[in-house]
Amino acid sequence: MLYIVGIGPGSRDLMTQEALDVIAKTEIIVGYSTYIRIIRDLIKDKEIVSTGMRGEVARCQKAIEIAQTGKDVAIVSSGDAGIYGMAGLALELAAKAEAKIDIKVVPGVTASIGAAAALGAPLMNDFCHISLSDLMTPWEVITKRVDAAASADFVICLYNPRSKGRPNNLREALDIILKYKSPETVVGIGKDVARPKEIEKITMIKDLDEEDVDMTTIVIIGNKNTYVADGRMITPRGYTL
Amino acid sequence: MLYIVGIGPGSRDLMTQEALDVIAKTEIIVGYSTYIRIIRDLIKDKEIVSTGMRGEVARCQKAIEIAQTGKDVAIVSSGDAGIYGMAGLALELAAKAEAKIDIKVVPGVTASIGAAAALGAPLMNDFCHISLSDLMTPWEVITKRVDAAASADFVICLYNPRSKGRPNNLREALDIILKYKSPETVVGIGKDVARPKEIEKITMIKDLDEEDVDMTTIVIIGNKNTYVADGRMITPRGYTL
Repeated sequence: MLYIVGIGPGSRDLMTQEALDVIAKTEIIVGYSTYIRIIRDLIKDKEIVSTGMRGEVARCQKAIEIAQTGKDVAIVSSGDAGIYGMAGLALELAAKAEAKIDIKVVPGVTASIGAAAALGAPLMNDFCHISLSDLMTPWEVITKRVDAAASADFVICLYNPRSKGRPNNLREALDIILKYKSPETVVGIGKDVARPKEIEKITMIKDLDEEDVDMTTIVIIGNKNTYVADGRMITPRGYTL
Repeated sequence: MLYIVGIGPGSRDLMTQEALDVIAKTEIIVGYSTYIRIIRDLIKDKEIVSTGMRGEVARCQKAIEIAQTGKDVAIVSSGDAGIYGMAGLALELAAKAEAKIDIKVVPGVTASIGAAAALGAPLMNDFCHISLSDLMTPWEVITKRVDAAASADFVICLYNPRSKGRPNNLREALDIILKYKSPETVVGIGKDVARPKEIEKITMIKDLDEEDVDMTTIVIIGNKNTYVADGRMITPRGYTL
């Protein structure tokens, strides 16, 4: 049996009961070294197959091979494994494999949901997830999505907003968003949510400091009704109060 | 202290450790009767303040009043409390209140994430959440969002897709989506996810039976690359395999 387990944004607190149970009962754990570190207290006595960043295909292949021998194995992925995580890749590779295995995807709290709770309630109306990483999606497709989302006043959660290899993607995305949204639109930033160095900031598009944003940051851009009250970012659902 | 707790889509398995801990330690639990029933085993010895549907404002107000007396109280909300749940309303009302209270939002697994894991991995690329309930958002705003999301080939998660009071909203949304997406686009349906009568179906837009869809159903419409393999709905992230 292959389990594909979302371990939440960072702390054991935000793992689901099922993720905890699966990790407790599974002897072999496969994952990117950062995620393995996050759950190290839970997997002390287990066999660990850990690889670095960009080793995703090898990692999934290895987990599938282990499952094909009849053993139980869990691939761990941060947040929810099905959102920019390992679930899709593992299912794709398993579908191509000749020897079929049983697979269960165990859902988790994705980074935007963790960041949103820490910031207040910015996702109370329709929202999108867009990854600004153009490693695997063409930049024209990404910018088209940013444009469409801003034009219809979605709340926008930006994953992978900025890295050393692509320092300008966030700036370019914000410039597109500013075609439709006011520069005073509320923006929330959640960095390292549920991890030791967690930081939240609430600002406006015009005052956003890009230096606050890196690959472990989620940027949440409000809709035209999003406001700040008592230090929290709130997108109204629409109740008359 | 007021806790606003997302209890996940339905089963205790999909609750976070923090949600379980908060409910265990809090003496007064406020919630819609359906959600109170879902967690009844966890709250046997507690004081329960339960109200029916559409009692959201009264429920939040009551919880805030209890917290203002200095007691700990938890409002429970299905899925994640910050996604079409109770977090926004509770924060809005608390911000208006004169007597300030401490508030913590405890994130949860939202319905789309639970449904996606049961269906496979449909949310592996950029996606939107759109509620088709026009009780609080004008239908023109909703249809504009559906149009924008489909035009940029987002994966689209439809919340509140169809009810007795609005039997045609799903049909109208699908007609807009079909301006841009092929009738063969893969659609996943998750009904009562993580509850006893759970049903998943994978079909195509052209074959979707609207009778399979009601208010406890999440409809996930794929992007142009979404496919079905080994009975699972997969949206590729873009790895070359």
